[in-house]
Amino acid sequence: MIDFQTSPDRYRHWKLAFDGAVATLTMDVDPTSTLAPGYELKMNSYDLGVDIELYDAIQRLRFEHPEVRAVVIASANPKIFCAGANIKMLGVSSHGHKVNFCKFTNETRNSIEDATANSQQKYLCAVSGTAAGGGYELALATDYIMMVDDGNTAVSLPEVPLLAVLPGTGGLTRVVDKRKVRRDLADIFCSIEEGVKGKRAVEWRLVDEVVPSSSFKDAVKARAAVMAATSDRPGGKGVTLTHPARAISADAVSYPHIEITFDRDNRAANITLKGPQTAAPTDVAAIHAQGVDFYPLALARELDDAILHLRANETSVATWVIRTEGSHDLVAGYDALLQKFGTSDWLVREILLYWKRTCKRLDVTSRTLFALVEPGSCFSGFMAEILFAVDRSYMLDGTFEGSDAQPATIRLSGLNFDGLPMGNGISRLATRFLGEPDSVAKAKDEIGKDLDAAACAALGLVTGTPDDIDWEDEIRLMIEERAAFSPDSLTGMEANLRFAGPETMETKIFGRLTAWQNWIFQRPNAVGEQGALKLYGTGKRAAYNQERV
Amino acid sequence: MIDFQTSPDRYRHWKLAFDGAVATLTMDVDPTSTLAPGYELKMNSYDLGVDIELYDAIQRLRFEHPEVRAVVIASANPKIFCAGANIKMLGVSSHGHKVNFCKFTNETRNSIEDATANSQQKYLCAVSGTAAGGGYELALATDYIMMVDDGNTAVSLPEVPLLAVLPGTGGLTRVVDKRKVRRDLADIFCSIEEGVKGKRAVEWRLVDEVVPSSSFKDAVKARAAVMAATSDRPGGKGVTLTHPARAISADAVSYPHIEITFDRDNRAANITLKGPQTAAPTDVAAIHAQGVDFYPLALARELDDAILHLRANETSVATWVIRTEGSHDLVAGYDALLQKFGTSDWLVREILLYWKRTCKRLDVTSRTLFALVEPGSCFSGFMAEILFAVDRSYMLDGTFEGSDAQPATIRLSGLNFDGLPMGNGISRLATRFLGEPDSVAKAKDEIGKDLDAAACAALGLVTGTPDDIDWEDEIRLMIEERAAFSPDSLTGMEANLRFAGPETMETKIFGRLTAWQNWIFQRPNAVGEQGALKLYGTGKRAAYNQERV
Repeated sequence: MIDFQTSPDRYRHWKLAFDGAVATLTMDVDPTSTLAPGYELKMNSYDLGVDIELYDAIQRLRFEHPEVRAVVIASANPKIFCAGANIKMLGVSSHGHKVNFCKFTNETRNSIEDATANSQQKYLCAVSGTAAGGGYELALATDYIMMVDDGNTAVSLPEVPLLAVLPGTGGLTRVVDKRKVRRDLADIFCSIEEGVKGKRAVEWRLVDEVVPSSSFKDAVKARAAVMAATSDRPGGKGVTLTHPARAISADAVSYPHIEITFDRDNRAANITLKGPQTAAPTDVAAIHAQGVDFYPLALARELDDAILHLRANETSVATWVIRTEGSHDLVAGYDALLQKFGTSDWLVREILLYWKRTCKRLDVTSRTLFALVEPGSCFSGFMAEILFAVDRSYMLDGTFEGSDAQPATIRLSGLNFDGLPMGNGISRLATRFLGEPDSVAKAKDEIGKDLDAAACAALGLVTGTPDDIDWEDEIRLMIEERAAFSPDSLTGMEANLRFAGPETMETKIFGRLTAWQNWIFQRPNAVGEQGALKLYGTGKRAAYNQERV
Repeated sequence: MIDFQTSPDRYRHWKLAFDGAVATLTMDVDPTSTLAPGYELKMNSYDLGVDIELYDAIQRLRFEHPEVRAVVIASANPKIFCAGANIKMLGVSSHGHKVNFCKFTNETRNSIEDATANSQQKYLCAVSGTAAGGGYELALATDYIMMVDDGNTAVSLPEVPLLAVLPGTGGLTRVVDKRKVRRDLADIFCSIEEGVKGKRAVEWRLVDEVVPSSSFKDAVKARAAVMAATSDRPGGKGVTLTHPARAISADAVSYPHIEITFDRDNRAANITLKGPQTAAPTDVAAIHAQGVDFYPLALARELDDAILHLRANETSVATWVIRTEGSHDLVAGYDALLQKFGTSDWLVREILLYWKRTCKRLDVTSRTLFALVEPGSCFSGFMAEILFAVDRSYMLDGTFEGSDAQPATIRLSGLNFDGLPMGNGISRLATRFLGEPDSVAKAKDEIGKDLDAAACAALGLVTGTPDDIDWEDEIRLMIEERAAFSPDSLTGMEANLRFAGPETMETKIFGRLTAWQNWIFQRPNAVGEQGALKLYGTGKRAAYNQERV
């Protein structure tokens, strides 16, 4: 099992150091601490295990360190800043593992950009020693790249010449779209194994600044101070991210607020999010006091871990059926806090951003996502966002026979319209109603109301509203049907239908770049017995089929 | 050899009929006239051969029929409007053929949208009998879809449930992005083999209108008349598209204005575009009189055919090295006409649009594109656009030793800034200079001037400007290097680096959708021995590997 929970005391590959408003995150990969056998993490190369620590560190910097306003990514290896994803690891990994690994590393790099842009925790990269492939892609995710000018240090994307794959962790996209490197120079850059160093790297926009060795340390420090000075992070006490309790058995995973049971026959997971049990605190001080137990944060952390766990460890579970259980009024109390303090309090802002990122993780999850709205559910405000992230949602019209429960309702809040954008930059409701923008306005008029099945159907908020007579059959058939389709075609279909409307650098990375990389990860020229990934390090040259397709 | 040249007298699958301002293009596929052995084109299904005729018909409607203002796409088969791409054909085709086939069909559907939007020749689709898969995707490319309401006729995208592939000819993208079908309804629609008919198809936005059988013919006629009424096409005499002369030998392809020679050792093609030999005509009447011999039209037609020929028939030729030969002043004469009459004269408008589409064909060509600017070249105005479509361009600084030729220059025109947008909706120069918009303005200031290597280097218009001493080695090494890389990784790299900046429905189709489809076209669930494409029609069920990746 791949565990995404870790903490600094268990890190094998990263070191965190603090100096006032500036933290330094130093990569120092232990070659022998690998996630799987069959390779060594030489030259600061990484596998998923290294990236799990990186992700954890980024999260902790945000939540545990309100005093940190700038983060320097550095390397403990004087020769190699970072050699990128370990090639031997890629060579021995299954197709599924490679794809899932790349998705997580992409999400982690996006979270660096999100921290810089939205948490005001600004990342810069201090490249000393070569940053190759994924090493440079890590630098690309930061807001400012400084490179030592020592005649040796270079940045490079050697994937095409060396490995017959792509710089697939955002590299190709960020080079032309974020750093706006001219396409012909980018083409040359991606063809040069040894990369580009010194002034030319600045001229081509590959890095922001080169600095002589002798003054590099001071220059990085000075630049970090400048970046920190523009941040609004207030300092003070952070929230320690203790691990949520989790119990994993053969047919269930449970957290304090999430229960997952598996319907193995239908290759489905039933995921129930439990609403808050107690009323929301009344002020910011109380939110801070609750810390990691504050319901929205607790839920986000559990859902995040659950998504990552299911993606990596339950690859045959193809359909996720998501339910909620709880009180609209209680959720609404927390939702109101998120809205009220989401811009003024650093912690509430962080929590809202975390929920945004967690919903985005759902958006790019290659599983069919269904939501069921049943009596007793609490799809309300930020939790209702799940309904607009899934592929289909069904809401029971009325109650189940013999039940005295109240019929299910849905409650919208301002967060469904603003504050939780998809990767495409617009809200899920705006994406949903691309063809009828008036429907967004109509839904907005219903904020705060308890909307029953008829109202939700009229507003177009759910896919269907079967009654008790049809409910069981309809849901069962839908789940069985999904299990009968090719998982690959579903992945492709969902990746195309979920992202109507604008495309952004982020959607380009998950759409265009990732899709091409996945294609290449299937091609014999990369992964065949004579392919470059397989032969790397053996001294043999790959034999390519020369046909262009 | 696959020949992309055809004409109505040779059509086997389409019938063209004219009634004043309205043309009807009727699909009537001859099952036995296939492009390759091993399948029959039953139920109005298509292979590349059918689509070559469709492309030809669309081109002729634009150029030969200025009186045609609306085009109805219809079917001669009363039960099946069109069953889409022939499955048996896909099952027996190589990966490369499938990919190339899809690319061409996508370009052809885009050309339908271009005709509607820009030639004011408006397409509508009259769906009588089921439009399945590629059949519905053809309808999606038109501006208005009418469907008969007869209890049988439906539109469907059964690829996922039936074939384990995607509706990859724009279907998924156009459903949510063009027709703005709600994503959950689109998800259901793509899961229903038999599709959606009648009122529901209108409610879901899948079609624009359903009409009872008895009044369908009249309703289509009336709608076509309405669409025709809003067109500005003037009528009059068209230009007959006689075939450009072409000679194909083992190591060369030649047209009147294009010479192609192959450097098989380096898997490269040397493509030389010859500039005009005579001065441009002085007025519109003379342009019309020259017709198919008017230089820009002749060049566009030859280049279009050459691109298609090389893509389909020279798949191991991985690098295209493009040169020009001729006089700037002569090209500038023609360029001025394109600018002067490009909006006011229907034929000049068509020629400009055709050049735009041809440049776009280059953009999505999965070959490395290089351009060489040597003494005697004529990269000028619309022909200079080639320089901004290629991956790299090199310009000789000075002359070759012993030559008394003038050093090469480049000349820009207004068309390099406006009138020839890429698929991303902005000009190639705007895309090139995404990071330095001032550079676009600077280049604009140089319109009409002869820019030598130093000037071009300063303006960033070319990749490099070696002198005579370095030229030969530098070019040779670059071509050899390219030949040594994996063709697949080059395809992926180029597809990502070429499209910085905005994404549009068109770039989404060639990026996101196509890339996912190509991935699926490699997956055993589709193309393996137990895959759905292989087993289709055998009565056996595909056995899927159930892992989601």
